[in-house]
Amino acid sequence: MRDLCVIGLGLIGGSLLRAATQTGRTAWGATESSADADAARTDGFDIEPAVEAALRRAAERDAMVVLAVPLTAAESVLRTVAELAPHCLLTDVTSVKQPIAELAARIAPQSTFVGGHPMAGTTRSGWQAGDAQLFAKAAWVVCVDEDTDLTSWAEVATLAIDVGAEVVPTSSELHDEAVARISHLPHLLAAVLAHVGAEDGPLPLSLAAGSFSDGTRVAATRPELTRAMAEGNRAALLPVLDSALGMLGAARGALASTGSLGATINAGYEATRARATQAGSPRSPVRVDLTAADAPEALLALGAQGGRITELSDDVAVGALPMLDDDHGQQ
Amino acid sequence: MRDLCVIGLGLIGGSLLRAATQTGRTAWGATESSADADAARTDGFDIEPAVEAALRRAAERDAMVVLAVPLTAAESVLRTVAELAPHCLLTDVTSVKQPIAELAARIAPQSTFVGGHPMAGTTRSGWQAGDAQLFAKAAWVVCVDEDTDLTSWAEVATLAIDVGAEVVPTSSELHDEAVARISHLPHLLAAVLAHVGAEDGPLPLSLAAGSFSDGTRVAATRPELTRAMAEGNRAALLPVLDSALGMLGAARGALASTGSLGATINAGYEATRARATQAGSPRSPVRVDLTAADAPEALLALGAQGGRITELSDDVAVGALPMLDDDHGQQ
Repeated sequence: MRDLCVIGLGLIGGSLLRAATQTGRTAWGATESSADADAARTDGFDIEPAVEAALRRAAERDAMVVLAVPLTAAESVLRTVAELAPHCLLTDVTSVKQPIAELAARIAPQSTFVGGHPMAGTTRSGWQAGDAQLFAKAAWVVCVDEDTDLTSWAEVATLAIDVGAEVVPTSSELHDEAVARISHLPHLLAAVLAHVGAEDGPLPLSLAAGSFSDGTRVAATRPELTRAMAEGNRAALLPVLDSALGMLGAARGALASTGSLGATINAGYEATRARATQAGSPRSPVRVDLTAADAPEALLALGAQGGRITELSDDVAVGALPMLDDDHGQQ
Repeated sequence: MRDLCVIGLGLIGGSLLRAATQTGRTAWGATESSADADAARTDGFDIEPAVEAALRRAAERDAMVVLAVPLTAAESVLRTVAELAPHCLLTDVTSVKQPIAELAARIAPQSTFVGGHPMAGTTRSGWQAGDAQLFAKAAWVVCVDEDTDLTSWAEVATLAIDVGAEVVPTSSELHDEAVARISHLPHLLAAVLAHVGAEDGPLPLSLAAGSFSDGTRVAATRPELTRAMAEGNRAALLPVLDSALGMLGAARGALASTGSLGATINAGYEATRARATQAGSPRSPVRVDLTAADAPEALLALGAQGGRITELSDDVAVGALPMLDDDHGQQ
């Protein structure tokens, strides 16, 4: 099992270092934040004094390097990787995949890069917010792109599974479109709702209960983190924002003209049922032979159908697919 | 203490009947739903065989009548009230206040009407979803309008406090504007998010985690309930929808032109801080003498500043105000 070098010890990096160490893997970390480094060291983890030292050790040990820094810091860390650990297997946990893949190809072209993204988060950040159980049953995207080496892909997928996650194989492009819908749009709607709720003084906030609290929760995330992920996914986010604006505008028009919100509210209700159906449906088992010529296509098909991989061994990926009617999940 | 007659035994009516009975008040209910009536009777509550019988008993006992039916059913129940219990003290728990006040004045002009709205709910409905603890610490709007009789207002406010709620005095108009912001807009944004998340097949839903689940939770509410409350508040909801559309459109424009979502995301973040400040601020005690000439204005000022009333006795309302700087809650 390859050693692990985690650069960045915030919520995700810190949780990964804890979880990987717990599975018995040799793992060390480093961060530019001396507060996070000190806290991690106090908690008994193997923390190098600087990012450079961590990457030199990774090069010596041929470790897997995990970039666990915000998108805005990725370029600078990749330059250090290219200088000190240029041939390492490299993955990341950033919330957008195409920009990172392009950066890695441009700045650290000698490394073997496989993009990754665990779908786990809270509104808290930093080492103290981390938790070895953060990834339990969470989806962890491991990207299958045209140039992806499947042996390296399997190594990254194995790390994700070892720390409790379930692997979703998809392309960087489809990942970015998906997270625009289910992560970046929710953050923007939460910001809009929080602002509109507060813009008229104390009375509305005094009456706010469950629907407002739920709808605004992620607006409390540190703004620079939300900005980094949403602005970094601009190309995929724009058409999704247009979808949302179109639907909200249509609701406004219908309410003004006919007084009906039926189309909007029914569509939302049906969509929540489609999601519940997909989440609760029986699963059919799937096996993908990673040595087969069509393995990339088979993995991409599995991800596109809502499938997840829960086991990897002997060049075979074992997973499960929700058994959906044609109508489900396609509302 | 006046007896209580609750018409409608869904989530709110059923919870109120349970809570009022628990405080020792003589209380009975009735509903058009034989399933809810049977369940309530099985649970040991005093359920009349029909709405008419419940209202005749209210007239005999000069009870307080609570309309706990959806807005769409209010007109029909009010006609029965006007026929069988025309002089009773009447309140309601409907989520819009101006339309109900107008209906009551038109259909049951001999009754003394005081509008009410407990800000408590779940996505579940029906008798089985009810809970005597539903109103604990919840805001319960009791309306102070131009024609409100303060003695009757105090009786309704006492009922709300008796079942654990805190009373927010405000006008029907300001109530409707406030709930458009903090309840009806969240329901519409949840519907939009749920639909946009599901419109591209199973992959995005397979990756959906906390931000999407929180942002879509209330889209699972029965569509006819959401429609009744949002469509019934059309006049107040339209300008709030325009605010949200304007802000989301500005975010779209900024992302497309400059690549920045800073204005949107920072405004959302600042608003969550304003709300936390308001919720967590020290309270200053307030007393309102309900016999004073300016009592209505004093009550409205208390509500406008985010205050709540927690005690009523001897014509004095005792409450507390958050101590806010001028900037707080006014973002």
